[in-house]
Amino acid sequence: MAILVVGSVALDDVETPFGRRESALGGAATYFSLAASYFIDVQLVAVVGRDFPESHVELLGSRGIDLEGLQFVDGETFRWGGKYGYDFNARETLFTHLGAFAEFQPQIPASFRKTPNVFLANIHPRLQLDVLEQVDRPLLSALDTMNYWIERTPVELRAAIEKVDILIINDSEARMLAGEPMLRQAAARILDWGPEFLVVKKGEDGAVTFSKEGIFAVPGLPLDSIVDPTGAGDSFAGGFLGYLAASGDRSSHGLRRATIYGSAMGSLCCEAFGTEKIVDLEPHEIEDRFQEYKRLTHFEHAPILLNA
Amino acid sequence: MAILVVGSVALDDVETPFGRRESALGGAATYFSLAASYFIDVQLVAVVGRDFPESHVELLGSRGIDLEGLQFVDGETFRWGGKYGYDFNARETLFTHLGAFAEFQPQIPASFRKTPNVFLANIHPRLQLDVLEQVDRPLLSALDTMNYWIERTPVELRAAIEKVDILIINDSEARMLAGEPMLRQAAARILDWGPEFLVVKKGEDGAVTFSKEGIFAVPGLPLDSIVDPTGAGDSFAGGFLGYLAASGDRSSHGLRRATIYGSAMGSLCCEAFGTEKIVDLEPHEIEDRFQEYKRLTHFEHAPILLNA
Repeated sequence: MAILVVGSVALDDVETPFGRRESALGGAATYFSLAASYFIDVQLVAVVGRDFPESHVELLGSRGIDLEGLQFVDGETFRWGGKYGYDFNARETLFTHLGAFAEFQPQIPASFRKTPNVFLANIHPRLQLDVLEQVDRPLLSALDTMNYWIERTPVELRAAIEKVDILIINDSEARMLAGEPMLRQAAARILDWGPEFLVVKKGEDGAVTFSKEGIFAVPGLPLDSIVDPTGAGDSFAGGFLGYLAASGDRSSHGLRRATIYGSAMGSLCCEAFGTEKIVDLEPHEIEDRFQEYKRLTHFEHAPILLNA
Repeated sequence: MAILVVGSVALDDVETPFGRRESALGGAATYFSLAASYFIDVQLVAVVGRDFPESHVELLGSRGIDLEGLQFVDGETFRWGGKYGYDFNARETLFTHLGAFAEFQPQIPASFRKTPNVFLANIHPRLQLDVLEQVDRPLLSALDTMNYWIERTPVELRAAIEKVDILIINDSEARMLAGEPMLRQAAARILDWGPEFLVVKKGEDGAVTFSKEGIFAVPGLPLDSIVDPTGAGDSFAGGFLGYLAASGDRSSHGLRRATIYGSAMGSLCCEAFGTEKIVDLEPHEIEDRFQEYKRLTHFEHAPILLNA
């Protein structure tokens, strides 16, 4: 059992009030792969340039990630630079150099094509559709996207969304995508297009999952310290889909647990720079975080007489 | 058993994408009183002008609110005008005419001075201190405030906060008040000043309560429709303190239930203009909303083998 992920692997320059890192391992597919690797075997399909450090390859390998689909091409690796102030929900992008990623044509190795679980990280929806063509119909498929594609490639994006089981996006993107200001109505519309689940990420404010069976919401866990939120959303997706794929439990209970494991991985990711925390977790740290969410949110009813 | 509330009663002009109302019954103490009245008897201390409509007095009376402390003075009632777009977390204040409220000197009727529960809605912290001088030491006291007082009257505000059991404020105010960008650290600092509980309201994103025993968070409930969020925060406070005062349960369990009843009243408030919904609820609507929060947030652990 494994999950296939297709998306970006990048070199990030990040600055926060707590420090900075240069050419750190980044990219949506990186964070997803690392987070999912605690739950299930991961197969990565991505492209990097010849400048991609061997140490980063080793780091991905240290989590057992299958790198057969990692293409090395002439040119530079995708580079992103960003800066955060104390309001970690707002970040400033300093630069985006697509490099080799601009010409990315995902080629799924033959040994990955029957993989039953597929995550399409945030790339051009045409490429997401192309990956779905290359693989045998998976048991579980999910995609992430962003406002850029919602605005520029709505037809291809809609076609991709109709083909997957799960859409994972953020709050404002969900409203924009559906053309509905109210999240609940936006979710109903998106689920009508085909996906079984809609997962809405809200950053520091948690996440909400929608399905035909109802709504589940988890609040943000107030952390002792947020060092760097880069990759939290993709780590969330890794924990969420990693759990769902490994457990095979798509009931309401499974969906709820997946949302908590996603939140656990996203929140753990924020506690150190880049991938530094999620590359080297003990399983009990993930379980402890799950239980922390339980303590954070648990309550019980007790009878009280209300005045009419 | 009763709760005493001191604060504003106002006439509101409100416009949202769904309609408008003029000279509607508003004000923090109004919303608090109506919401709390389902849990406990309410004694209201406020000031209005001679222009305050008899129909609004009757409306408050219809919920059994004790109006002995409602002063009628020469001059106009406090008027507030506001406008919302589809992003209900952002509102535009069109005007604020303090009128009689500018000279408000709370006078607590003799029959209210032994009331064991007191809520000081958002007024000048000097007046909040003055009210605390006038009453016998209550079992349970709470105050709300805003950025205006945090910036302009920090010394008096701090003195008031040190005297109450519970501080109820919003997210950005908590950070500003403590001078800490991280909410968890801001909360620890504020609890060091004296309050037993800190309640942080996050609008559409729910609420978080902090105490020495830990943190409880409830996410926002995605509503079918938000008609008008005016008064949601004060309705939250009414449900929260109404439950806490009526149950007398200040354990971690009681605090959690109070947060849910607060969220229930705040969310119900948003579903109609102004006070129109919370003035006329059936007790089962409040219990149903409590259970809706339970379904929204409940999850259970199930064993899964994580990869080291």
